[in-house]
Amino acid sequence: MPQAAYTDRLTAAQRRQSSHLCVGLDPDPDRLPRHLLQDCNLADAVLLFNRAIIEHTASEACAFKLNLAFYEALRGDAWRVLKETLAAVPSGIVTIADGKRGDVGNSARFYARSTFDQLGFDACTVSGYMGRESIEPFLEYGGRGAYLLVRTSNPGAEELQGLGCGERPLFEHVARLASKWDAELPGTIGFVVGATNLDALGAVRSQCPSVPLLIPGIGAQGGDAEAVMQIAAQGDGPVVVNSSRSIIYASSGPDFAEAAGEAAASARELLAR
Amino acid sequence: MPQAAYTDRLTAAQRRQSSHLCVGLDPDPDRLPRHLLQDCNLADAVLLFNRAIIEHTASEACAFKLNLAFYEALRGDAWRVLKETLAAVPSGIVTIADGKRGDVGNSARFYARSTFDQLGFDACTVSGYMGRESIEPFLEYGGRGAYLLVRTSNPGAEELQGLGCGERPLFEHVARLASKWDAELPGTIGFVVGATNLDALGAVRSQCPSVPLLIPGIGAQGGDAEAVMQIAAQGDGPVVVNSSRSIIYASSGPDFAEAAGEAAASARELLAR
Repeated sequence: MPQAAYTDRLTAAQRRQSSHLCVGLDPDPDRLPRHLLQDCNLADAVLLFNRAIIEHTASEACAFKLNLAFYEALRGDAWRVLKETLAAVPSGIVTIADGKRGDVGNSARFYARSTFDQLGFDACTVSGYMGRESIEPFLEYGGRGAYLLVRTSNPGAEELQGLGCGERPLFEHVARLASKWDAELPGTIGFVVGATNLDALGAVRSQCPSVPLLIPGIGAQGGDAEAVMQIAAQGDGPVVVNSSRSIIYASSGPDFAEAAGEAAASARELLAR
Repeated sequence: MPQAAYTDRLTAAQRRQSSHLCVGLDPDPDRLPRHLLQDCNLADAVLLFNRAIIEHTASEACAFKLNLAFYEALRGDAWRVLKETLAAVPSGIVTIADGKRGDVGNSARFYARSTFDQLGFDACTVSGYMGRESIEPFLEYGGRGAYLLVRTSNPGAEELQGLGCGERPLFEHVARLASKWDAELPGTIGFVVGATNLDALGAVRSQCPSVPLLIPGIGAQGGDAEAVMQIAAQGDGPVVVNSSRSIIYASSGPDFAEAAGEAAASARELLAR
């Protein structure tokens, strides 16, 4: 049986959970609760941490996003920790591999295969600097999604992404090109657009109202959740808003998972207003 | 003792080996010699393959480049195969991690740490769409190099990279921005510029003549090695020219390693003319 389209599964998850919140599972060894590291090695401590966070935040979230950098740092344990973390996510909640991969040809096909076939993520993030060929292998997986970096939330994003190219900044060109690719290819293309620049978010939402958005930058990065959702309401593509640090590091004590659950509940409510 | 600058080590390797050739170790399971897979699992077959290719091509090469996508596909064995492949490269020959990573903050720091500290590569490739912050963590490793994607060799590169932004195409803006970052930061920034568009290569070389270049696209992709080296001669930054498939898959029989050695020798000679 072919898998339902990514947007259908995401929308179903959002309805069931009444949530637009994506919890970012970015386990930084320096910020893990110390007591987790007392009795086991780093990889197992990360697993304990992730499982506890998932258990206490899943009721508030429609998606979990895993930044692959934090797993790659686990060396030979990376694969196992990724697999076991994904296995802990309740079915029906969407999983996003945040690897920002951007390669072409067989390289891109191998990244897509390991992301979707082998690890079983529902969606991923991709970088489009190399063009359509860098996204195509991800879109060939009909039931999965690929969020393209359009306007990111980091402080220095503007220097390149805001570069004037004719009548509009580079990131708007990227969004337009990607919309063209999306119409020509199977699969679902979405955009990563940060919450830290509301003008950019508004421009992208009004130009491509039906494109799914993955929005980082609320929480620790300071984006305004209510303003983000007002802009999101101007379109109909499903919107997922990610928060990582302000949820998963809400406490570094033995109550870390409960504190994460409370922070996730607050974030979900903010997004639901 | 602090490590010598990346360009010094690269230049020393090029003098000692009389070579500008970088051999791309991109082990595609579908193209490995069948006999290697008869007696062992895929990861061990890849290791046998890489070791034999390295043994027979190292005398012709100044560098080996490993595209991380092909290793990530080895799942839980990825780390071990990367480590053991790097251990087989003779000392004094430069190693490049071709991961095209492009993230910021702690994510980028983790990528840099795993690439340089944990795996021990000399250089890597990076994608700069997120701006200076995505490259900075790699450049903080004083003795290492980071090659930024500027004008890639794939057929569809032009659509975005050739986009007109004021007086010049996007890729020239990226090169100029990166030159500015390079002047402000430690470490060595280089550019990835493909051999398949000689005009673009010429433009980048004349604008930034001292920047080290990593040039893919000769061999199977059809770039003209002699023309590339004529353009390279217009600057003084060290130039590394990569070839993967036309060397490592020169034969799929039991003579694959010897055939790779001969193909590497031919490529080295072409680049030395």
